[in-house]
Amino acid sequence: MTDREEQRSDIPQIAAVIGGGVIGGGWAARFILNGWTVQIFDPDPDSTRKISEVLANARASLPLLADTALPEEGQLVFCDMLEEAVAGACWIQESVPERLPVKRKVFAALQTYVDHNAIIASSTSGFTPTQLREGSSHPDQIIVAHPYNPVYLLPVVELVGGTDNAFIQKAEVLLSALGMKPVLLSAEIDAHIGDRLLEAVWREALWLVGDGIATTQDIDQVITHGFGLRWAQMGLFETYRLGGGEAGMRHFLAQFGPALALPWTKLMDVPKLDHALLDKIVSQSDEQSGHLSVRQLEQIRDRNLVGFLQVLKNHHWAAGQALRDWNDLTIEQRPDSAVDVTAQVPFCQHTARVLPAWIDYNGHMTEFRYLQVMSEASDTLLAAAGMDQAYLDTGHSVYTVETHIRHLAEAKLNEEITVLTQIISADEKRVRLWHSCVTDKGVEVATGEQMWLHVDMKAGRTKPFESPLRENIIAIAAAHARLPLPDGVGHSIGGT
Amino acid sequence: MTDREEQRSDIPQIAAVIGGGVIGGGWAARFILNGWTVQIFDPDPDSTRKISEVLANARASLPLLADTALPEEGQLVFCDMLEEAVAGACWIQESVPERLPVKRKVFAALQTYVDHNAIIASSTSGFTPTQLREGSSHPDQIIVAHPYNPVYLLPVVELVGGTDNAFIQKAEVLLSALGMKPVLLSAEIDAHIGDRLLEAVWREALWLVGDGIATTQDIDQVITHGFGLRWAQMGLFETYRLGGGEAGMRHFLAQFGPALALPWTKLMDVPKLDHALLDKIVSQSDEQSGHLSVRQLEQIRDRNLVGFLQVLKNHHWAAGQALRDWNDLTIEQRPDSAVDVTAQVPFCQHTARVLPAWIDYNGHMTEFRYLQVMSEASDTLLAAAGMDQAYLDTGHSVYTVETHIRHLAEAKLNEEITVLTQIISADEKRVRLWHSCVTDKGVEVATGEQMWLHVDMKAGRTKPFESPLRENIIAIAAAHARLPLPDGVGHSIGGT
Repeated sequence: MTDREEQRSDIPQIAAVIGGGVIGGGWAARFILNGWTVQIFDPDPDSTRKISEVLANARASLPLLADTALPEEGQLVFCDMLEEAVAGACWIQESVPERLPVKRKVFAALQTYVDHNAIIASSTSGFTPTQLREGSSHPDQIIVAHPYNPVYLLPVVELVGGTDNAFIQKAEVLLSALGMKPVLLSAEIDAHIGDRLLEAVWREALWLVGDGIATTQDIDQVITHGFGLRWAQMGLFETYRLGGGEAGMRHFLAQFGPALALPWTKLMDVPKLDHALLDKIVSQSDEQSGHLSVRQLEQIRDRNLVGFLQVLKNHHWAAGQALRDWNDLTIEQRPDSAVDVTAQVPFCQHTARVLPAWIDYNGHMTEFRYLQVMSEASDTLLAAAGMDQAYLDTGHSVYTVETHIRHLAEAKLNEEITVLTQIISADEKRVRLWHSCVTDKGVEVATGEQMWLHVDMKAGRTKPFESPLRENIIAIAAAHARLPLPDGVGHSIGGT
Repeated sequence: MTDREEQRSDIPQIAAVIGGGVIGGGWAARFILNGWTVQIFDPDPDSTRKISEVLANARASLPLLADTALPEEGQLVFCDMLEEAVAGACWIQESVPERLPVKRKVFAALQTYVDHNAIIASSTSGFTPTQLREGSSHPDQIIVAHPYNPVYLLPVVELVGGTDNAFIQKAEVLLSALGMKPVLLSAEIDAHIGDRLLEAVWREALWLVGDGIATTQDIDQVITHGFGLRWAQMGLFETYRLGGGEAGMRHFLAQFGPALALPWTKLMDVPKLDHALLDKIVSQSDEQSGHLSVRQLEQIRDRNLVGFLQVLKNHHWAAGQALRDWNDLTIEQRPDSAVDVTAQVPFCQHTARVLPAWIDYNGHMTEFRYLQVMSEASDTLLAAAGMDQAYLDTGHSVYTVETHIRHLAEAKLNEEITVLTQIISADEKRVRLWHSCVTDKGVEVATGEQMWLHVDMKAGRTKPFESPLRENIIAIAAAHARLPLPDGVGHSIGGT
């Protein structure tokens, strides 16, 4: 057992979440989906509904990034009293409004109730630990853990509070185990790192809108069709290293350094966010995004983020690496990884929403997209059973040799299809299996029977499965043996 | 033919690229992969090698985003004289070093050679059209078209030069046809939109590194694990709209507007990029990224960007929509229904080229694409037999109820697959048929047996074929009756 695991399993997994807005709700979701009990305190009577909506978004997205089933969800407890919320908690996350007197009051109250070994972390985007700790008898336990929205999907969290502070070190381990990527600041500074950068962009953007150079949509398009795409995978410095061409960073600095002295930005002046500018931004933003509700936008955002994170995870790059580390940690903790793939009978880890591009001239999902969904379900099962990039790199893979699809009903736009996969039989190199595609309306729209062969790709011939795929396939087949044979197995066209 | 198509086919497709660095090379690649001839002028003796490397990166990435085969690559011509490079060009892209006297000299020379209807576009990141046009006799033809690196993948291009300028309007159409997303600026301003935002971030980042708050890696991690991911799909304003929770933009502004007045940024001061800071950045950047060459980093970047763009394209969102529009422009028209459906036995009017996007992690065509090719062959046959839009408008269509696919060999990148379709049997409302997919190497890679039903879509039930489909289907079935039954008809998985 590594130090990290030991430390993790020693911790009683209760988190207190103080303040349940967008950020507090996101924290709650991340903890709960990682198996923690969350005790929430928020005087807003509407907080129960708001948090359950954030949690629903999180449930629909974070598990799509895990190679294995997530731990059983922790409990969500709404508390009427601060004292009740922090009882037994080793992590207290404060996400109350961004006003220093309010925060200080909360911290004073918290410190009368909590254990001195617990971590009290603030989500503040602006204040420093020194500001938050003023007047505290146990200052070290108060740290900044500043996340980004949506907290349940974006890994980054800025940790501030002294690199030699044991609470910071403990926080780093604990947050990594939640799939996050802590970045430790060497020194404290107002607004930490990210919000300083964002504040700079924000000011400049306000000038551009205020001066009528660009609309909110123009600015967003320049970002989403340009440097935003770059920054999802390489930051400012790594990107500029490439901007220098073969000569790299030094060349870039020589080439573009002098531009610093040009009067390109208006950042030396603070834009006046008066009523006129405020109305301009609100109405431009409504025109740009108002045809979608905030909930719809959140779901679109999360679906996009999940897609990006899956790409990065496949490539072992940037935020994808944090997800791999999280997965490895979750897998290591399980004594027997075969438990994951046999826990569900049948296996049903793959869900797909019917996209506009999938609709044919009949107004239904077009036939080959059914096979696409089944094929993605197959990949999900194989990945869960151990067919990862390292396995493929050994030159082994699984090929489909036959597929028999039956169309039973039509999937429609925006419906969600879940694929239930049952292994009918398996030997050392062959798997016969059955996919059943069921919509969120409970309709079985298609079935697919397949025969897979395990192959040595270089030799171009079949070969017995390697570990751990072999053991896992056998375990799944054994677990699925108790299921009845689906009606239609072995069916042929024009036959029975 | 739409205006856009008409305009596109009228343009003689020759582009001149003046300056072949990272940006000029990227422009060249985007034009060439869209079928344009590119004439390059760059005095650097090493430019041939550099550009062929950029082109290799582009060839390995841009085609992965196309649903259909790209047009045949245009020619790449290296020219020794400026005059030679611009001959016959309707688009001249200037990407020489960012010094105004150099650029003005180039424009003066260009205007002595080029047609007054040609567009002279500058890649300048800082200068305005007014600055570039000084002293020009034909100022309107000089515009700014500022792209982002890598030009062959990132869609955005800032167009500056007067929204009522016909050259700008022509440029917008032309760049869209290259798969780009032009953003028109309402007014000119130093550094346009994107580089003003980037300059603001860059200054703030230099302070953070210089003051020892964060390393280049810390900053890049906060971006790539946080707001960079968000900005790949929603910009600053749309993201903040969500930050306001259910109350949206106005709430966000009320909540975070006041922070503008806080002394969070040091942007009012220009950081001094002296030797000490320069060395610090270069050495931190080496430590962060030096284990990979610039070429390797470029390839990693492009692979990530392709992945993100595929996600967005699947979701019809942000940069993905620009790609869809580009695809729609290049999609070939479906064959007319004037084919003699019984002249060919079996029917083989459908051919498809194996596209990069169809290749899976095993390096072969992925399984559902075989069904896509067969499905398109079915549509071709049905169209030829009289199932046109008018027929569909009567509320009748043909549904596939069963498909049995056998994979016999692997289709590889760029191979051409022809589908041979044989009707096995047909009655007044059912067709049983057989597809055989054969590559241009003569290899039968897959077969597909299908059962179709003719349906009344509104009633949701089967119904006899209407004319002329009925007569044609019967005629095809009669003509195909003389073919032997394919080996494998009626086969079932696990059966015979």
